[in-house]
Amino acid sequence: MQRPSGRQPEQLRPIRITRNYTKHAEGSVLVEFGDTKVICTASAQAGVPGFLKGQGKGWLTAEYGMLPRSTGTRMDREAARGKQNGRTVEIQRLIGRSLRAAVDLNSLGENTIHIDCDVIQADGGTRTASITGAWVALADAIDHLKSKGLVTGEPLKRAIASVSVGIYQGVPVLDLDYPEDSAADTDMNVVMGNDGGIIEIQGTAEAEPFTEAEFQSMLALAKQGIAELHQLQQQSLQR
Amino acid sequence: MQRPSGRQPEQLRPIRITRNYTKHAEGSVLVEFGDTKVICTASAQAGVPGFLKGQGKGWLTAEYGMLPRSTGTRMDREAARGKQNGRTVEIQRLIGRSLRAAVDLNSLGENTIHIDCDVIQADGGTRTASITGAWVALADAIDHLKSKGLVTGEPLKRAIASVSVGIYQGVPVLDLDYPEDSAADTDMNVVMGNDGGIIEIQGTAEAEPFTEAEFQSMLALAKQGIAELHQLQQQSLQR
Amino acid sequence: MQRPSGRQPEQLRPIRITRNYTKHAEGSVLVEFGDTKVICTASAQAGVPGFLKGQGKGWLTAEYGMLPRSTGTRMDREAARGKQNGRTVEIQRLIGRSLRAAVDLNSLGENTIHIDCDVIQADGGTRTASITGAWVALADAIDHLKSKGLVTGEPLKRAIASVSVGIYQGVPVLDLDYPEDSAADTDMNVVMGNDGGIIEIQGTAEAEPFTEAEFQSMLALAKQGIAELHQLQQQSLQR
Amino acid sequence: MQRPSGRQPEQLRPIRITRNYTKHAEGSVLVEFGDTKVICTASAQAGVPGFLKGQGKGWLTAEYGMLPRSTGTRMDREAARGKQNGRTVEIQRLIGRSLRAAVDLNSLGENTIHIDCDVIQADGGTRTASITGAWVALADAIDHLKSKGLVTGEPLKRAIASVSVGIYQGVPVLDLDYPEDSAADTDMNVVMGNDGGIIEIQGTAEAEPFTEAEFQSMLALAKQGIAELHQLQQQSLQR
Amino acid sequence: MQRPSGRQPEQLRPIRITRNYTKHAEGSVLVEFGDTKVICTASAQAGVPGFLKGQGKGWLTAEYGMLPRSTGTRMDREAARGKQNGRTVEIQRLIGRSLRAAVDLNSLGENTIHIDCDVIQADGGTRTASITGAWVALADAIDHLKSKGLVTGEPLKRAIASVSVGIYQGVPVLDLDYPEDSAADTDMNVVMGNDGGIIEIQGTAEAEPFTEAEFQSMLALAKQGIAELHQLQQQSLQR
Amino acid sequence: MQRPSGRQPEQLRPIRITRNYTKHAEGSVLVEFGDTKVICTASAQAGVPGFLKGQGKGWLTAEYGMLPRSTGTRMDREAARGKQNGRTVEIQRLIGRSLRAAVDLNSLGENTIHIDCDVIQADGGTRTASITGAWVALADAIDHLKSKGLVTGEPLKRAIASVSVGIYQGVPVLDLDYPEDSAADTDMNVVMGNDGGIIEIQGTAEAEPFTEAEFQSMLALAKQGIAELHQLQQQSLQR
Repeated sequence: MQRPSGRQPEQLRPIRITRNYTKHAEGSVLVEFGDTKVICTASAQAGVPGFLKGQGKGWLTAEYGMLPRSTGTRMDREAARGKQNGRTVEIQRLIGRSLRAAVDLNSLGENTIHIDCDVIQADGGTRTASITGAWVALADAIDHLKSKGLVTGEPLKRAIASVSVGIYQGVPVLDLDYPEDSAADTDMNVVMGNDGGIIEIQGTAEAEPFTEAEFQSMLALAKQGIAELHQLQQQSLQR
Repeated sequence: MQRPSGRQPEQLRPIRITRNYTKHAEGSVLVEFGDTKVICTASAQAGVPGFLKGQGKGWLTAEYGMLPRSTGTRMDREAARGKQNGRTVEIQRLIGRSLRAAVDLNSLGENTIHIDCDVIQADGGTRTASITGAWVALADAIDHLKSKGLVTGEPLKRAIASVSVGIYQGVPVLDLDYPEDSAADTDMNVVMGNDGGIIEIQGTAEAEPFTEAEFQSMLALAKQGIAELHQLQQQSLQR
Repeated sequence: MQRPSGRQPEQLRPIRITRNYTKHAEGSVLVEFGDTKVICTASAQAGVPGFLKGQGKGWLTAEYGMLPRSTGTRMDREAARGKQNGRTVEIQRLIGRSLRAAVDLNSLGENTIHIDCDVIQADGGTRTASITGAWVALADAIDHLKSKGLVTGEPLKRAIASVSVGIYQGVPVLDLDYPEDSAADTDMNVVMGNDGGIIEIQGTAEAEPFTEAEFQSMLALAKQGIAELHQLQQQSLQR
Repeated sequence: MQRPSGRQPEQLRPIRITRNYTKHAEGSVLVEFGDTKVICTASAQAGVPGFLKGQGKGWLTAEYGMLPRSTGTRMDREAARGKQNGRTVEIQRLIGRSLRAAVDLNSLGENTIHIDCDVIQADGGTRTASITGAWVALADAIDHLKSKGLVTGEPLKRAIASVSVGIYQGVPVLDLDYPEDSAADTDMNVVMGNDGGIIEIQGTAEAEPFTEAEFQSMLALAKQGIAELHQLQQQSLQR
Repeated sequence: MQRPSGRQPEQLRPIRITRNYTKHAEGSVLVEFGDTKVICTASAQAGVPGFLKGQGKGWLTAEYGMLPRSTGTRMDREAARGKQNGRTVEIQRLIGRSLRAAVDLNSLGENTIHIDCDVIQADGGTRTASITGAWVALADAIDHLKSKGLVTGEPLKRAIASVSVGIYQGVPVLDLDYPEDSAADTDMNVVMGNDGGIIEIQGTAEAEPFTEAEFQSMLALAKQGIAELHQLQQQSLQR
Repeated sequence: MQRPSGRQPEQLRPIRITRNYTKHAEGSVLVEFGDTKVICTASAQAGVPGFLKGQGKGWLTAEYGMLPRSTGTRMDREAARGKQNGRTVEIQRLIGRSLRAAVDLNSLGENTIHIDCDVIQADGGTRTASITGAWVALADAIDHLKSKGLVTGEPLKRAIASVSVGIYQGVPVLDLDYPEDSAADTDMNVVMGNDGGIIEIQGTAEAEPFTEAEFQSMLALAKQGIAELHQLQQQSLQR
């Protein structure tokens, strides 16, 4: 088996995390997993949605989008069509759930953090890149709140990163790019904390069911890849 | 640990599968997982969506809904609000993917099967009940197509069933009802074929990450529960 | 003239009213007019819409829907299409107006009752079955409010029932089923109180206008049918 | 009993029908029932909707709207809100059904007639004025089609007119204006052909049910008023 | 060069401004620029939108629509399609901006004026006719507020009028009608105050860019035409 | 008068045009006017919309969007809200009209070019930066079509660039940034071809009307600025 990119099965694509990518957001990151490029911003705002008011705790929510020509063929602009499609909704719910696991909402106070992940170039793995990059933006936004004295405790409970794994031509591989993703038998996205805990596992058989053995080997690959991503996140925060 | 229902950790709720529940659909099933009740219909229709035309293969798609008062508090009617919410979209995509794994779309010919899962009473596990019941409706709809000579081969590749598992008060439990679901630390939905293959795993940590050990014990419970469900599906088809 | 069902012109279909059909709603009824089956729930909720606030009176509103495969051919799901169609809107307005005539909104206090009528199987007369069944659900919901002490007077002013009448092959007939409805020259829906008062008359000529004589004979049939329905409603409440 | 306008109970408001009110439409009428003013256009267009193609018959459909400030208090613009409200939908369906009863769709050939009724000033009875005026616009549009040789037979089967009747302070009155309409116990709209046939009856009890006797007296008033309207329609066509 | 209408290049169409055209609005004008006819109403309402509350100043906003058959070919009804099209949005924003330049929002107090411009017959120049007519409606509405004592100062700062100019067959012409507009190389809409100030200039090259010289000659024509329109506005207010 | 940025009145911000910014689109440009950054892509696609089919000519259309946190305060995501706002619609129509003036649609053949301008960071002048950058993307996309032999003639008629001008503290200034834009008395956007022709002028008085003299000085500034932009466009194409 030869991966289209020439990578080893357990090899991540080149990962780049650029902080302060745009100037307005409290946290703003360009994350690159190879040719997949996503702008992740974290916007901190005083107040919480109605259903949480007066409880002294915060909220985090996420939205996801793709520029119409981030892909090989131009997609319809969702704003013009008046509707987010099912895939978009599914992904932004995953991003929101995953990043809420990074935050102690009680320590956040009555503040809301909006995560926006906008794909400017897609080459597979946009949701895992989004989660990984958005966590760095989130860390910056929380730092901002702390430096302004708007938050006193430490709302950031753990680091969160995510990677995809799959079975490509019978072999478990890490961090699928688009050519692999579209040919893979099975695709799994894993989100984990830097404490080794599992936040979310979403595995989908594309054509044929996968076995438990395959599942175990994919999970092992994911753990290793996420550990590397956590290191890269920490390095980016120290720059 | 005492489950609210008094069940053993590895015990399913009483499961009932009533075929031919309504008269118009090619397959129509009322599935009950305890107090969770879902009407699942499979509608067979000649023709396929535009993107598949002329390829000689079929299509299967699924939609999901809840009656406004299927729940403890009345929910807004999605048709009146003009929008399906994110949870609905996520669930109907899961149902569609899962049941497509049951079907050989090539053998189906240019026919489309619409799966509709409408929850008339909710008590946890509506998506797993939907998948389990919809497979029986699907089997009936395919039988209908075969008996009419509209399909010649055997499009039904395998049986599909689904169950939820979770960690409730520190103990892995099978088939969570609503009181358990809303208190669980972790919730996982597993879809498997009767050949033991995994179709879909979706595990979500609600508050704290879960460990691999917890994951393994949940997966073991799910396998056992799904095996029972496959038996119940077969029994219902023989009635 | 022979009715497709073999019924006499003045004969209702077998009517069944099953109370407490689902467990969450304050009133929950499965109503069956022959093969037409509708789940009617009445949900009581504290508070009223903005335009009524502070007036000390209540509100009642109704929504109607059909499961996509309640009919011979699958209909689009309105929630997925993002819009209720004209027929749906017309019917739910009729249901709401009719049931408001059953209630003394002043005695109801600042409570809102939501009526939901969801057709699970359609065979003609879904709107008249909805009104007839929803009244029983309404009576149960009001009983609930009284038993909880949330309402002190008697908001239920009268019983309301509804039936369709039409001219089928030149003969006035009661309670049209789908084969009759689709072939009828004229279709009329009548809603009356158990005090003999007329709440709503909606008569429509399908192809040719109808005469006053035809109208009178249809109205007479409707009165008789509604009287029977009122008896069946009372019997169901005594079970 | 004194009507706010000083009219006799059986007296119509001053009715004016102005043909060729705007220049583009094949039929264009300004109809005035007192201070209620509606622009009714009939647009003839080659072709029919998909569900009728190839059957050699035509179609007629109607839409209704109110200018935002046609009423005492400004209403939201439906185009800006993105949705027609329930009342609008109900009225335009009534207009469409009523005018289809005027037309032999087989003689119309594969042509579609769009009726548009736009209220520029409202003072009660906008739907009955719309039907009455739109019929004249329809007659002109059909004449246009005949004069162009696009239609050979006679698609216009009969004249259609409509009026409202109600019980105001206990007395049956004809053609309610807004002050009467908002105070009436009962409101009924009747559509009839000039051959005396009934096309549509819609009677609604606002607060208390109405009796059969009241119904009969209202129906008698409506017949007389519609006969007058048919005369006025004919006169306008001869000008 | 011969204009289709036989007008001189610098000649306006016959302009008519009819005040009090409908009875409910505080200001109501039918404005006619030749065969272009627009109903302009100004509705005064106590209160302002949320973003202005408590600042003691008022607001003015505008909406625009066309009756479906105001044009040669019937257009879709925007309310039925559920969306205003881009041209509508662009025009109503222009009308709103232009008329806000006529008003001292501080003197208006916390009142909102809604301008509605509804085209009942279109023959080119609907936006310029709308602005010109709406200003007269606005003046009447402000007079109404002053006569009721709801406004004490003078919110009306200046008169506003608008006209189109273009290059038709190489010649600058004033106030284009539809045949000219659809054949013109360049189309420019100018809004000016009666103090000679420019409120808005929107010039668009349809096929080929225009030169500065052409621009200057068009601007000169517009100034002259707007001066005439200001006179006609004043005359209409003195009637 | 001191500009917030310290620029001279007639001085552009630093302009950067980066071609091939993303990999999928036929033309892809990051354009920067100071801190305003817009990704402009031009996507070439075989075929034209229905209304142009069979005429042998092409089409160009444009859409515009802003990332939610491209601005100082997070804006709602239009895709999630289900609607593009009025400003968005107005801008994308301007971009489309402007770039159509650059193209000979007959030479383009039955191909469609979609322009997408997505603002990733906003600091005033997003529409003028969009037009200027999108023209370079368009040039690349047309080159792509020519190199593939999909277009034989030369569809690119001229270069198009755009800049804003305004009166800031009484002085005409070129290329307003956000602090200037929000404080300016008058704002004008000018689009011109490199042949000196005017494509579009949109001038708006924010509070007080502007004089012709002010207009002339702004137009002169715009001409000079656009000439510089045309040079920068040409330089970027030669890299």
